Amino acid sequence: MSRVIEVGTPSEDNKAIGGVPTLHYFDFSSRGRGEVVRLLFEDAGIAFKDHRIAFDDFNAQVKSGEITALNPLKSLPVLEVGGAKYFQSYAILRLLARKLGKYDGKNDEERYYVDAINDIASDWRTKFIDAAFQSTADGIGASPNPENLKFHKAFTGPKFAAGLNTHLSTNPLSSGGPFVLGKEITYADLVIFQIAHDEDWANLEDNPRLNELVQAVKARPRLVEYFNSDRYFN
Amino acid sequence: MSRVIEVGTPSEDNKAIGGVPTLHYFDFSSRGRGEVVRLLFEDAGIAFKDHRIAFDDFNAQVKSGEITALNPLKSLPVLEVGGAKYFQSYAILRLLARKLGKYDGKNDEERYYVDAINDIASDWRTKFIDAAFQSTADGIGASPNPENLKFHKAFTGPKFAAGLNTHLSTNPLSSGGPFVLGKEITYADLVIFQIAHDEDWANLEDNPRLNELVQAVKARPRLVEYFNSDRYFN
Repeated sequence: MSRVIEVGTPSEDNKAIGGVPTLHYFDFSSRGRGEVVRLLFEDAGIAFKDHRIAFDDFNAQVKSGEITALNPLKSLPVLEVGGAKYFQSYAILRLLARKLGKYDGKNDEERYYVDAINDIASDWRTKFIDAAFQSTADGIGASPNPENLKFHKAFTGPKFAAGLNTHLSTNPLSSGGPFVLGKEITYADLVIFQIAHDEDWANLEDNPRLNELVQAVKARPRLVEYFNSDRYFN
Repeated sequence: MSRVIEVGTPSEDNKAIGGVPTLHYFDFSSRGRGEVVRLLFEDAGIAFKDHRIAFDDFNAQVKSGEITALNPLKSLPVLEVGGAKYFQSYAILRLLARKLGKYDGKNDEERYYVDAINDIASDWRTKFIDAAFQSTADGIGASPNPENLKFHKAFTGPKFAAGLNTHLSTNPLSSGGPFVLGKEITYADLVIFQIAHDEDWANLEDNPRLNELVQAVKARPRLVEYFNSDRYFN
C-alpha cells in the first residue's frame, strides 16, 4: 500500500528551495533513483514529504492513465515544491544544488567534472535497471531475459566501477579524496553511493578509491542518523 | 581506417572555449552521441578537428589497452581542448554552453527544464544503444538478442517520443515552439534531433510538436550547409 512519511522540520534550506517538497517515488525500500533525492534532503537537513508508491498502485495508475497527471513520461521520481513539478532525478539534483549553493562544483571545470562523473554513474544505473527490469504498457516487471542481469553483474557493473575508480584516483580534482571534489560532498557522491548500494556493494573490494568515497558518504553524520532510523528500509 | 578532418576557421567562440578542439569519436557516419558535439560546433561556427576512429581500430585499441590513455572508461566521445580532455557527451555540451554563454537556459528554472528534457532524450538514446549493441571485453558488437531491438522499436522508442511530445506541447517554456525553450536553441534540441535521426526519424509523424523541433534544427542555416557538405556522411 502506498504511504506518505513526513520527515524533519523546515530549515533555512527549505526556504532556499521554495518550501517543503513532496517526493513521489516507488516504495522500493531505500533504493533506486529516487533514493538519491532523499539522501540529499537527509544530508542537508531539509524537511520533506516522502510519498512512497507501491508497485501495484503504480501499475494500476499506468493502466488507468492516472500517472500521467504526475508525469507524462510515467517515470518516477517526481518532486513537487511550491506548486511546481520536477522530473528526472539528475536534473532535480542539479536544480537543488544550484538553489542551495552547495553539492556542486564552484567553477566551470569543477561543475563539468562533477557532471561527467555523475553521467558515468547514471549510465551505470541505467544499464543495471535495464538488465534487471523491463517497462511495458502494463507497468514495470522483471526483465524477460535473465542473461541480461548475469552479463551486467559479470562485465558491465565491474567495468563502470573500475572506470570510476580510475577517474577518482587519477584526476587531480578527486585524487585527494574522499569525495569527487575532495573534501566537499557533491550530488554525484550521493549518486555513486546509491548505485553501489543498489548493486549490493559489489565491486568495491577491487576499487579502493571508489570504496573510500562510498564509506565517506556512509559516515556523514546526518546520514548515519537516517540509516539508523525507522524510515530507512534496508 | 581512422581519419582526421579539419573543419572551419577559428572564431571568437573558439577563444571562448580555449582554442581549436579535437573531437575523438567513432567513424559512425554522422550518427551517435559524438555527432551532437559536432552539431554544436557546426551550428556555432566553431573550428574543430574531427578524429573519426574506425570500429576495427577502436576494438584493437580496447584489446591493447591503448584506448585507456584517452579515457579510462574506454568510452567515446572524448574532447581535447587546451591540453584538457573531456569525456561524457552531455557534460561536454553543458560545459561548452557555459563557456559560450548560449545553448542553455538563462535562469535556474530554464536550466533545470533543459537538463530534464535532455535527460529524457539521453535515456532514450541509452536504451536504443543498449538494445542494438553490446559492449564486451573485445569492444563493441551487435546485441546478442535481436528481441531487444524489436521491443525497443515497438514500445520504448515510441514511448519516449510521445513523452517528449507531451512535455514540449504542454510546458509553457516550450509550447510556443519550435525549440525546448521556444525561439532560442539549446544543447537539448541538438540531442533530441540526433536521437530522432539515429532512430531513422521514426515516431515523428505521431508527435507533431517533436517533429516541429526536429524540422527547426534541420533548418538552421549553418546546419543546412553542413548537411549539404562532403563532411556529412548520412
